Amino acid sequence: MIQRVCDLVKGRVPVLVGITDTSFVESVNIAVKARDAGAQAVVLAPPYYFPAGQSELLEYLGHLTHELPLPLFLYNMPRFTKLIFEPETIRAAAEFPGIVGIKDSSGNMVYFRRLQSLLKNRPDFSLLMGWEELLAEAVLLGGHGGVCGGANLIPELYVELYNAACVKDLSKVETLHQKVMEFSTAIYHVGHYESSYLKGLKCALSCIGICSDFLAEPFHRFRRAEHEVIERYVKELGIHKPK
Amino acid sequence: MIQRVCDLVKGRVPVLVGITDTSFVESVNIAVKARDAGAQAVVLAPPYYFPAGQSELLEYLGHLTHELPLPLFLYNMPRFTKLIFEPETIRAAAEFPGIVGIKDSSGNMVYFRRLQSLLKNRPDFSLLMGWEELLAEAVLLGGHGGVCGGANLIPELYVELYNAACVKDLSKVETLHQKVMEFSTAIYHVGHYESSYLKGLKCALSCIGICSDFLAEPFHRFRRAEHEVIERYVKELGIHKPK
Repeated sequence: MIQRVCDLVKGRVPVLVGITDTSFVESVNIAVKARDAGAQAVVLAPPYYFPAGQSELLEYLGHLTHELPLPLFLYNMPRFTKLIFEPETIRAAAEFPGIVGIKDSSGNMVYFRRLQSLLKNRPDFSLLMGWEELLAEAVLLGGHGGVCGGANLIPELYVELYNAACVKDLSKVETLHQKVMEFSTAIYHVGHYESSYLKGLKCALSCIGICSDFLAEPFHRFRRAEHEVIERYVKELGIHKPK
Repeated sequence: MIQRVCDLVKGRVPVLVGITDTSFVESVNIAVKARDAGAQAVVLAPPYYFPAGQSELLEYLGHLTHELPLPLFLYNMPRFTKLIFEPETIRAAAEFPGIVGIKDSSGNMVYFRRLQSLLKNRPDFSLLMGWEELLAEAVLLGGHGGVCGGANLIPELYVELYNAACVKDLSKVETLHQKVMEFSTAIYHVGHYESSYLKGLKCALSCIGICSDFLAEPFHRFRRAEHEVIERYVKELGIHKPK
């Protein structure tokens, strides 16, 4: 899978590979595979079954960076891991060689701003926003970028928004941010489960012929009713497969 | 590891092996290893990163039981998996061939009683209590047993309590339950993290020479201060290595 992505991307953009696991050894194994396949970096959320303490997390990262063959982005995803990387943990981890940034999916802008303050002397440490709905404000006030699910479907929208925010073109930012919100409101909120955003995205991707809407066990793809709603939104939003 | 346990146990008691994973294939792989090593059953909590819906969980169990070479116990552990097996999901899953019981670590006795009611015509489906502090009441009112962490240290205490509850010897149950509570209060609440109970147990086991107190990454064993507290409790409670 990693190899296939790298082959398709052909070096046009960096490929970052998730190595999140509850096992230290498995995370290292995936990182080695990622390096062998030609990826540029790896991404790690905390071990997510049994909750660890912050000092344990920090030591874990120290041990891990010794074994990783690629630069590491941290991934703050408390909704799924049940714990956050505390800001002071991030500040300390940013001193480890090989840890180059963080993707924050907490949705907590106070946390994001706190990271920025703590790392204001580390412009080389990337602060990436995990919620595309918060990309505009994150970048307008000094965040370095975002990891946007919707960019799988409409990459140009998110690139334009990022560029407009970088040059502080507020009027353009507002227009593009509005489009991101329309997309998110439509595609991510069909269905009842917490997995709706993922299913909506895969379903929309299948509607325009990018990939199948298959999801790994135990998740179901959307059934016909939800599929029809997504298909209508895709048409209304004018989403097409890029040439 | 599984093989070593089975070799040490030598068939004196059943060996149940945890196969909880976020990957269907990995769960099946561990189950095959468990069967090959001579284990009697496997135990599965829901995939625990991305939360699934109940209908997805049920279908997952259906697919899984087709692939498993050993009987399956479900493991309800919402504190770590972020979701429960709803009682109706358990009732439906109990119809699948190969699913033989559930260990409930929710700590919610209403849930446990609800399972009992729903499965009152299925005495072959085992309802096991995951909290040893609730073993007495669980068995007194019809539960089938428990999975008790402290039984790693003092198995005879838990066996006696179970036997007393089975024959409704309430006076003996009260005395033994009190001992379980003293043990739990002492050993499981040293330290600050959610992992304290596991660290306390491993530390106590190391104090009496059963095994090392090593924990897998990212967890630390107790340091000297906590170790000394546990060591004192082990002496006060008169815990010795069985002959």
